[in-house]
Amino acid sequence: MTPDPDRLALAVDIGGTKFAAAVVDGGGEVVVTRRAPTPRSTDPDVVFAALASAIDATLDAAGLRLGDRSAAGAVLVPALGVGTAAPLDLTVGTVSPVNIPGWRSFPLRDRLTERYGVPVGMIGDAVAVAVAEHWRGAARGHDNVLGMVVSTGVGGGLILGGRAVSGSTGNAGHIGHISVDPEGPLCVCGGIGCLEAISSGPSLAAWARANGFAGGDGTAAAVAEAAVAGEDVALQAFRRSGAALGLAVAGAVTLLDLDLVVIGGGVAAAGPLLFEPLAEAYTRYAALGFAARPRVVPAMLGGAAGLIGAAAVVLSPEQYWPSGSAD
Amino acid sequence: MTPDPDRLALAVDIGGTKFAAAVVDGGGEVVVTRRAPTPRSTDPDVVFAALASAIDATLDAAGLRLGDRSAAGAVLVPALGVGTAAPLDLTVGTVSPVNIPGWRSFPLRDRLTERYGVPVGMIGDAVAVAVAEHWRGAARGHDNVLGMVVSTGVGGGLILGGRAVSGSTGNAGHIGHISVDPEGPLCVCGGIGCLEAISSGPSLAAWARANGFAGGDGTAAAVAEAAVAGEDVALQAFRRSGAALGLAVAGAVTLLDLDLVVIGGGVAAAGPLLFEPLAEAYTRYAALGFAARPRVVPAMLGGAAGLIGAAAVVLSPEQYWPSGSAD
Repeated sequence: MTPDPDRLALAVDIGGTKFAAAVVDGGGEVVVTRRAPTPRSTDPDVVFAALASAIDATLDAAGLRLGDRSAAGAVLVPALGVGTAAPLDLTVGTVSPVNIPGWRSFPLRDRLTERYGVPVGMIGDAVAVAVAEHWRGAARGHDNVLGMVVSTGVGGGLILGGRAVSGSTGNAGHIGHISVDPEGPLCVCGGIGCLEAISSGPSLAAWARANGFAGGDGTAAAVAEAAVAGEDVALQAFRRSGAALGLAVAGAVTLLDLDLVVIGGGVAAAGPLLFEPLAEAYTRYAALGFAARPRVVPAMLGGAAGLIGAAAVVLSPEQYWPSGSAD
Repeated sequence: MTPDPDRLALAVDIGGTKFAAAVVDGGGEVVVTRRAPTPRSTDPDVVFAALASAIDATLDAAGLRLGDRSAAGAVLVPALGVGTAAPLDLTVGTVSPVNIPGWRSFPLRDRLTERYGVPVGMIGDAVAVAVAEHWRGAARGHDNVLGMVVSTGVGGGLILGGRAVSGSTGNAGHIGHISVDPEGPLCVCGGIGCLEAISSGPSLAAWARANGFAGGDGTAAAVAEAAVAGEDVALQAFRRSGAALGLAVAGAVTLLDLDLVVIGGGVAAAGPLLFEPLAEAYTRYAALGFAARPRVVPAMLGGAAGLIGAAAVVLSPEQYWPSGSAD
């Protein structure tokens, strides 16, 4: 996808903590953005109203309606690109994000189409991050990519043959919920030994605390700080998290013959603390020739990746818009 | 892909035991086929000559050259569809099948193009089986499918969004070499605890023998017979194999949001002995809503699947012909 000076996209990022909307230009730069805290309400309409406010505030700040031409002559494409916390169901356009209790099988696609009168291209939030890294970040020029976010949870999105993969219902990429330890800890999803139950920030911090870590506020950030200072249990916590990630990533590369794996998110910000044990485990478990060369790199785009990926859905629909949401 | 009465395909199946070629009609039926044992020779040209003989004998038996029209008016498409034992490298058109020592980085695509003067569409043998099951077998009507062969090895091929997935080098689908037991047995590939090292016929039989099984000739077939007769160690061997398969398949469905998993091959022929523990492990490890519904079924096509899948590459290139081999 090459930068397009003639088009702008309205992008939406739906997370458990905040809603964000943005106008993104054809080169992947955020022109204007507005955000709102995700309501804790169990009333689906209250939650939707907060989202609509963030979108409306973004349009107002840009001084544009959908379909308008900007002062510089670029059209704000009459469509919405949405990256949403999972799970979702693209076959019917609903979302049930774990951390948004007000939305259970909420018909987000229909509600947005109804309100804004335009098509809505919806993808998972981690898929949006993968798309963004593929378009403008660390995965540029690679056709077969797993993008991951390791933070409060462990999410993922796939690009195969240069195109975003949605799967049957829009949930492809859920690497955080494959089991990497058949006898491991129970996961919130109900599975056993899921990658997320070992490698996420909260899981990593819980393991450290259970093994005697008492530094700072006991979060993954505090564990990272102690690891940098050389504290043994903190180093071990990162080694355990990194090793599980390396095992899972080795499996994904072997199954999908990927070029590149890009990892972002707060835990990945710990850098070599995480990436070194990850690479070591990767090498141990990805032995077949086509998979053996290590290919795991840090993400480049940070917090705006979700919005940039959602914009790509609008700007390059044939490549990134899952068929299930184009109807 | 709908049956096409106007076209015939020349299909080739390259295995470690035998080479097969066939003329396959537009409905996926094998019209005529010839085979030859795979030479043990380390001379690549001796091996290639045996393959060419099988292809030539098939053309002779059909009474057609590539591009000819049959008596019934169907054209034998001027192209070759090839399913080959892995690994392969579609970026350069070479193959290095583990069980064909005479071919190491052998330029199969160029050699076949040179000899027959037509384009060559090459895919892995397990990908061919997945394609065949998708076209004519147990996966008809499903867009997101993992096809597996559990026999001497454990292979796989993927259909995503209705299209065959090749990956960067043509090796996508290698589920047999993802680790399902991080502390498990060493695999021939150099990895640790690979699915193949636990669930393949020889691995299953070796485990049974190591645990006291002494029935028949000690092969997986003998273990299956003893399991049917209720012998405990034989039943355990199948439970162990099935459980590892269920864990791996749960991971693949979770990562890729698949509709269906189709499993064939000699070990899968044991039926419920394998599929019951498989389903049990699947349910334990695939807990997320979109993945939780079990969806693992036996293959329908048997030994001809490889040829039928290779024919589909010729008959429906836009769907099944990996971009890497179309050049």
